[in-house]
Amino acid sequence: MRIINNPQDMQKFVKEQKRLGKTVGFVPTMGYLHQGHLSLVERAKRENDLVVVSIFVNPTQFGQGEDFDIYPRDFERDQKLLEGLDVDAIFYPAVEDIYPANYKTYVEVYDITEKLCGASRPGHFKGVTTIVTKLFNMVLPDRAYFGLKDAQQVLVIKQMVKDLNFPVEIVPCPIVREEDGLAMSSRNVNLNPDERKAALVLSQSLFAAQKLILEGERDGAKIKRFIEEKISKEPLAKIDYVKVVSGENLEEVEELKGEILIALAVKIGKVRLIDNIMVEV
Amino acid sequence: MRIINNPQDMQKFVKEQKRLGKTVGFVPTMGYLHQGHLSLVERAKRENDLVVVSIFVNPTQFGQGEDFDIYPRDFERDQKLLEGLDVDAIFYPAVEDIYPANYKTYVEVYDITEKLCGASRPGHFKGVTTIVTKLFNMVLPDRAYFGLKDAQQVLVIKQMVKDLNFPVEIVPCPIVREEDGLAMSSRNVNLNPDERKAALVLSQSLFAAQKLILEGERDGAKIKRFIEEKISKEPLAKIDYVKVVSGENLEEVEELKGEILIALAVKIGKVRLIDNIMVEV
Repeated sequence: MRIINNPQDMQKFVKEQKRLGKTVGFVPTMGYLHQGHLSLVERAKRENDLVVVSIFVNPTQFGQGEDFDIYPRDFERDQKLLEGLDVDAIFYPAVEDIYPANYKTYVEVYDITEKLCGASRPGHFKGVTTIVTKLFNMVLPDRAYFGLKDAQQVLVIKQMVKDLNFPVEIVPCPIVREEDGLAMSSRNVNLNPDERKAALVLSQSLFAAQKLILEGERDGAKIKRFIEEKISKEPLAKIDYVKVVSGENLEEVEELKGEILIALAVKIGKVRLIDNIMVEV
Repeated sequence: MRIINNPQDMQKFVKEQKRLGKTVGFVPTMGYLHQGHLSLVERAKRENDLVVVSIFVNPTQFGQGEDFDIYPRDFERDQKLLEGLDVDAIFYPAVEDIYPANYKTYVEVYDITEKLCGASRPGHFKGVTTIVTKLFNMVLPDRAYFGLKDAQQVLVIKQMVKDLNFPVEIVPCPIVREEDGLAMSSRNVNLNPDERKAALVLSQSLFAAQKLILEGERDGAKIKRFIEEKISKEPLAKIDYVKVVSGENLEEVEELKGEILIALAVKIGKVRLIDNIMVEV
């Protein structure tokens, strides 16, 4: 397994491999890998000749006062996990090689980035679309794998790839959960034991809402209120948002119909967690 | 010579060619080709196995009240000219295939896009960087050729390519001029005979300024005033801007030193023309 730090070396390596006719699967991550990431890697391994995983905690997608500094990092641990999956290359660049002095260019998707997490974290998706553009240009993948825990991110990336004609297939992959239902997240490590227990309120309220819909509830506002009430009973939880929206355009829906995304962001202590569930009505 | 209209077909064609190991040279144009464009094509032919020329009058780089509607177009004429140069493919897409309904994504270079033409034409370079990103992703060139008549555009594209890590080499090519000195431009066809004569004031004032500098003048403000005075004597000319700037970052310079760009935009009647000259001091 190669570890590549330099953007030019990264591009050179994949260009050579592509010249040999190999297809490239790409899993962009911020590291501190969990089973969710590894499921993306395994799928990429199955579908491509070569798999590249990037590990880069991208400063431009964190806002002022967000958790960039305390975002968990452990490269050696990540490296071992990826070695175990027989990944071909880790791309592990330094911030100053990605955003050198005199950096001036950003990619921005409008409209759908202003809702949900975009409303709570202004500039977040501009950071995401910029780094993903850069990574696509450095890794030149045929397929790129993204987890559906950040459902909005998948939608934004798909919009960007379509709009800017990137020659990349976006492969969205299902959320991976702990045994008790908590969606896997690198940020979970920042929860203390009480918070870890309290964090179950995210998945449990989503599962309960799903059940209500499957039993016939079609009123989006009722579902939203139901979740909000359930979460507000947990003293360590503070709601950022709960949204019941169309899975296509993230517009709020009154009468549930078609592909419905129920998405939420909740602060458990100081840790902001997100989770969601898709329901086909 | 192929004529390709569809973005997917374009991408498919070059992907096949690249799989055969061929290098791709790309000349993006808005059509109504003149000798300036053709010099880019000739250079691209010399340096690449395959040459693609795009013809697309890009609406997003024109502002309200600008000349999008009257921008000259003549596809059959362009096609013949490119056939004569043995170009491999013309990419000639429709606006609705480039900006379909629900289009939401833009690429923006900050700072250097706010000066010179960017100050007179807000949003212009955002349209340019977005379409060039899209074209790069559709045509997947190894090298792309741009004329230095729009010196700022070359600088902006180079900044974008560096910042976003595009695997493309930008090749800037010299301005091509009519015998009397007027810089070639598709827009020249919109000048009436009197205006065509008056338009010489652009190149003539630049050449005269160059001469002053070569004779020892080092005061940027004096050079600027000299050009402004010369142009203001031409009754059909109306100055948009005259700038004496660093060729690296487009900052105005007081004492001329290093690579100096003298750039101007002048309206001759209703036709806005640009021209520039680089002087190494």
